Amino acid sequence: MRILGIDPGLVATGYGIVAADEQYRLDCLAAGVIRPDSMTMTVRLLHIHEKLTELLHEFIPDALAMEDLYTTYSHPKTAILMGHARGVVFLAAAQRGVPVINYAPTELKRAITGHGRASKDQVQAMVLRLLRLPEKPIPDHISDALALAICHAYRERALPILRR
Amino acid sequence: MRILGIDPGLVATGYGIVAADEQYRLDCLAAGVIRPDSMTMTVRLLHIHEKLTELLHEFIPDALAMEDLYTTYSHPKTAILMGHARGVVFLAAAQRGVPVINYAPTELKRAITGHGRASKDQVQAMVLRLLRLPEKPIPDHISDALALAICHAYRERALPILRR
Repeated sequence: MRILGIDPGLVATGYGIVAADEQYRLDCLAAGVIRPDSMTMTVRLLHIHEKLTELLHEFIPDALAMEDLYTTYSHPKTAILMGHARGVVFLAAAQRGVPVINYAPTELKRAITGHGRASKDQVQAMVLRLLRLPEKPIPDHISDALALAICHAYRERALPILRR
Repeated sequence: MRILGIDPGLVATGYGIVAADEQYRLDCLAAGVIRPDSMTMTVRLLHIHEKLTELLHEFIPDALAMEDLYTTYSHPKTAILMGHARGVVFLAAAQRGVPVINYAPTELKRAITGHGRASKDQVQAMVLRLLRLPEKPIPDHISDALALAICHAYRERALPILRR
């Protein structure tokens, strides 16, 4: 089972692809950040869409995991701008027939650390441990995306041994 | 010169295509509303993107006009959801190389009625008059989209006679 986790943004969109094998072993297949180098909204969205389509084509994930809509934005404009990137992610997934699953921040933290109000550092540390990564990915968008992919792997009961 | 005006939304996306000829005559080439019949976000976005791509292919507009980001949303969640549809519109335009131009509500009203704080009814009445439409298009998303297209035609100085 392969899951593509996405942390969408117009400036930087983090992605991470996690595989869960039959021995309940998680592996990070790829991870990185899409940084459109244009200042134009249209070109940025085009760049994000193209890169995502490439990833979906190359890794053929079973699902795409994203964070649920935030509800605490103080600036509606920022929220709408983030929505643009999110819409393009949804579209790329739909065009390849890949289901998109959203997780609330507390759900994500609980799945990764066992605690719904865990700190960001704690989540990042668990991402490193669970995927056996040599060092913390920079920027944070990458570990956020990987955390979402891990969260979905757990939720799909692909890893029943961890639930004992 | 042809302009595609879009009033984006996940439930209903209004569109209108306006042509301005050399005699400064405006014509409505097509207008309607895209209503995705699915409840799923991904399928809705896919539907909007497909229909827009068809319109861009069929009418080959020189520009796409949309309303500027609203800044008065009381519900950030609504704002983000609208942003999803908007992102997909931007993407469809970028994929066809069509520039997207945004107009503030006051700018739009001033271009159509001469007054930046004109009522919605006044704007709709002027859209009917300027395009010589037999009756008011329903729903409002359609006349909103047509108003944006007319606004851009004026702004592009395609119609200098109106500026005397």
